[in-house]
Amino acid sequence: MKGLGRHLILELWGGRNFNSIVAVEKALRDAAAACAATLKDIRVYHYSPEGVTGVAVLAESHITIHTWPEYGYAAVDVFVCGDGADPRVAIPVLRGHFEAERIQVMEVVRGIASCIE
Amino acid sequence: MKGLGRHLILELWGGRNFNSIVAVEKALRDAAAACAATLKDIRVYHYSPEGVTGVAVLAESHITIHTWPEYGYAAVDVFVCGDGADPRVAIPVLRGHFEAERIQVMEVVRGIASCIE
Repeated sequence: MKGLGRHLILELWGGRNFNSIVAVEKALRDAAAACAATLKDIRVYHYSPEGVTGVAVLAESHITIHTWPEYGYAAVDVFVCGDGADPRVAIPVLRGHFEAERIQVMEVVRGIASCIE
Repeated sequence: MKGLGRHLILELWGGRNFNSIVAVEKALRDAAAACAATLKDIRVYHYSPEGVTGVAVLAESHITIHTWPEYGYAAVDVFVCGDGADPRVAIPVLRGHFEAERIQVMEVVRGIASCIE
């Protein structure tokens, strides 16, 4: 199914390091590198009392991580465009950084139209 | 269906202003305001030869816009967490800014778990 980009929607459960801006930034950088993506910018914020939001702006779209340490949960998106781009290579990277017990994966193909070959 | 956040995946087709960083930034700001979200940061980039990527980091998650002016297409995500947050209020804002002829909408409820009431 041809489209302009592949967008993984990941639900990480039973994870660790979700309250660490260092861990989230490292995960963003390593996930981008795994996808062979070009990092344009990275922003990571810690929220009170707990939780981290990290955004990696890519030349090929974006990776985002929002964590809820109190639930051992993170919502992660890996959206990459371009021929041959495969966001699934980021999954083992994320699993490794956060030691998630389980990861629910959904993939959405973005930009499907009859006018795009 | 209770969860931690609501994530709209929007496919805008037949739109205009997709090569304008000014239009994309304005759309991000107005969409965030419509959602009553707190803007933490906003980043907008123009790509060569055409196309814009814009990311709004919210206290409530994120809004992203990636455009392909050559196809009249944009991939937009509006992800907001918190009680009462409704990302759908951003749809008419986006339609207005980009004059999209049609918008495909999918909503994903993020962070559903039996441990979260």
